[in-house]
Amino acid sequence: MASLSTVFDSLKTAQAKLALENRNRKDAALAAVCKAVGAARQEILAANAADVEKARTGGMKESLIDRLLLTEKRVDSIIEGIETVIRLEDPVGKIKSGWQIPNGLLIEQIAVPLGVVAIIYESRPNVTADAFSLAYKAGCAILLRGSSAALESNRALVKAVKKGLETTGIPAAVELAQSGSRDEVDEILCARGRIDAVLPRGGGGLIRRVVDNARVPVIETGEGNCHIYVEPSADMNNAVDIIENAKLQKPGACNAVETVLVHRDALGPLMPLLAARLAGKAELRCDAASGAAIGAPPQGLVLKDAVESDWETEFLDYILAVKTVNSLNEAVGHINAYGTSHSEAILTNDLRAAEEFCRQVDAACVYVNASTRFTDGGVFGFGAELGISTQKFHVRGPMGLDALTTIKYRISGSGQIRE
Amino acid sequence: MASLSTVFDSLKTAQAKLALENRNRKDAALAAVCKAVGAARQEILAANAADVEKARTGGMKESLIDRLLLTEKRVDSIIEGIETVIRLEDPVGKIKSGWQIPNGLLIEQIAVPLGVVAIIYESRPNVTADAFSLAYKAGCAILLRGSSAALESNRALVKAVKKGLETTGIPAAVELAQSGSRDEVDEILCARGRIDAVLPRGGGGLIRRVVDNARVPVIETGEGNCHIYVEPSADMNNAVDIIENAKLQKPGACNAVETVLVHRDALGPLMPLLAARLAGKAELRCDAASGAAIGAPPQGLVLKDAVESDWETEFLDYILAVKTVNSLNEAVGHINAYGTSHSEAILTNDLRAAEEFCRQVDAACVYVNASTRFTDGGVFGFGAELGISTQKFHVRGPMGLDALTTIKYRISGSGQIRE
Repeated sequence: MASLSTVFDSLKTAQAKLALENRNRKDAALAAVCKAVGAARQEILAANAADVEKARTGGMKESLIDRLLLTEKRVDSIIEGIETVIRLEDPVGKIKSGWQIPNGLLIEQIAVPLGVVAIIYESRPNVTADAFSLAYKAGCAILLRGSSAALESNRALVKAVKKGLETTGIPAAVELAQSGSRDEVDEILCARGRIDAVLPRGGGGLIRRVVDNARVPVIETGEGNCHIYVEPSADMNNAVDIIENAKLQKPGACNAVETVLVHRDALGPLMPLLAARLAGKAELRCDAASGAAIGAPPQGLVLKDAVESDWETEFLDYILAVKTVNSLNEAVGHINAYGTSHSEAILTNDLRAAEEFCRQVDAACVYVNASTRFTDGGVFGFGAELGISTQKFHVRGPMGLDALTTIKYRISGSGQIRE
Repeated sequence: MASLSTVFDSLKTAQAKLALENRNRKDAALAAVCKAVGAARQEILAANAADVEKARTGGMKESLIDRLLLTEKRVDSIIEGIETVIRLEDPVGKIKSGWQIPNGLLIEQIAVPLGVVAIIYESRPNVTADAFSLAYKAGCAILLRGSSAALESNRALVKAVKKGLETTGIPAAVELAQSGSRDEVDEILCARGRIDAVLPRGGGGLIRRVVDNARVPVIETGEGNCHIYVEPSADMNNAVDIIENAKLQKPGACNAVETVLVHRDALGPLMPLLAARLAGKAELRCDAASGAAIGAPPQGLVLKDAVESDWETEFLDYILAVKTVNSLNEAVGHINAYGTSHSEAILTNDLRAAEEFCRQVDAACVYVNASTRFTDGGVFGFGAELGISTQKFHVRGPMGLDALTTIKYRISGSGQIRE
């Protein structure tokens, strides 16, 4: 591969051209990519088999191997993912606002592509195609930096993507960074003026490393230490339904709940029901008061004493921490101290409590009487999702294609000068 | 003063409270600040006199001393500036979008304050009051890091601001960083999770230093190497009016033009008129072809040969560089290579040229047949201006109060769980 510096230049050049393409031409290019990925199916599966074999030899855990693995069906899903992007509206060129100022100048605020975007991600090869297709639709060039474990799979995928794009005459605007070295990541993170934004997708360690070292703008995504606060006026049967759903429907999701905060006056009605529901399904890590409120433990309940580190942990597992609070303020204080500004819920029938919780909790998504699991670009109606931003700058919460745009002012005059 | 770390904590606490205040209460607090600044007028002028004397003794240039100097009238302007902010709409709490999803959840996208903002600026003390009042209105706490030359003035101003806020019972949410050391700046730039954004306001050197060293999000502002491209179909008399205005109406402004690009077919009609108009008013630095096209130099014209570094320079002075180009593409290429993505104009009567220029130039503001001097929050109708963002992330172009907000999703349900 060419040096990264050359790659940055070619992506910038390609992006400048891609930015001028209309939706029809971009969609046609993406359709050609679908075809090319389909045609390269055997090649992609063979490359993936090599990655998987190497990973197994290297002792990778089976759960991670499952994330790496491609099958016929998963290649179909990759193609379907691109087809979904084809159906999305083009975010580029939208006139977001427009007005005339007194001297007759017309000011229009127009959505334009963000530019060259880098994504640094862990082993799932489907992210390669997803990220490319979303970036392409938004008129952005993309630099893909996958994990070394998925290198052959990603090479085969990007080769197919480029082959599809070749047929269209539009510049490729996609490159794979593939030396696998850490220096490569550092070079991407420091490429000010050449990379317009970097998206880390993966675990907390990856995200923190990127955030700490980046000199280019970062979009932090996906760390979710989410809470549900149960207020005494809540419907306790519904509360148990919601907590079970938020914890168990997909425990590995970033919007799964990790700690339930229970008002002391809600302990009595809630805890026995919750313990009965989660017995045999999830381990409870309770503080003294909430543990005591369970009473006689139902059969199959795994109950442990919560420790300080539990409040900080995104378990991503069949584990739920439970903490007693004396007030809404204490719940809000705990969430703002330990949360990751992702998704936070209150279960209540008290209007003022709902209002205060929503205003005071500092998070991308605040819920009243619903599961935190709804924080999702698809659920929100964005059609596709780039990730969930947990930062406040540029974009917050589920990210659709708009997150890959910025604006430009076009000012049209007839000779105006400033007095 | 307390250590910066303590200051960060107190600003965060104050901001969390300020975020919950309504417009009436914030406006009343700002009105109290106006009164307090008026009451402290003599104290502020005395402190400023001390700064000015020290600067003069230290040999500061008179033009810089003028920026530092406060007078009765300038204190009035500071108060009027705060009054202007009082009249602005509150950007916080606005429901920017809202919709129901099929399961009945109501999703609302609500504007909320960005958080704790730091501003690092050079000697003008009026920025102290401007930045405070804008941040306050947007519900943000602000850390002010002025230059050491203005330390006494800033101390007196912030003391008056705090005194005004005291009367309201709302937390102050404003602090002055005043050790004057470079370490202090570095501590601000690295305060991830404590400072939500940093705004450098000043020359290119300051901005680059901040951008290179910051670990917190930065909003780059104000570097303007702006261009006007004169296409052969332009009305040449109007072109001369616009260039004169863009260069001379305020040469020190970031939206002033620095280089005029002239299509070779426009050299003949344009250059003699332009030279006649600017003779005695601005120095021309021309490439060979544009210089030759002037013909017999009019009386008083200062004409020099342009050199490569002229294309890169934001003169902020009575100097205009002129370069000949062979095509619109060459003009766009020059602008995208040397420009600072601030304000770029085409003068033309050719519809396709206007369209292509606007689409291909990568800048916050692209103009057709108007002076670049209109890039300004006031002119755009934003009521007040935090600066002109030259970056693509979070905010681009003139920044109103909205630039100090982010969003939060509020999701209201009645017990929904995810299927």
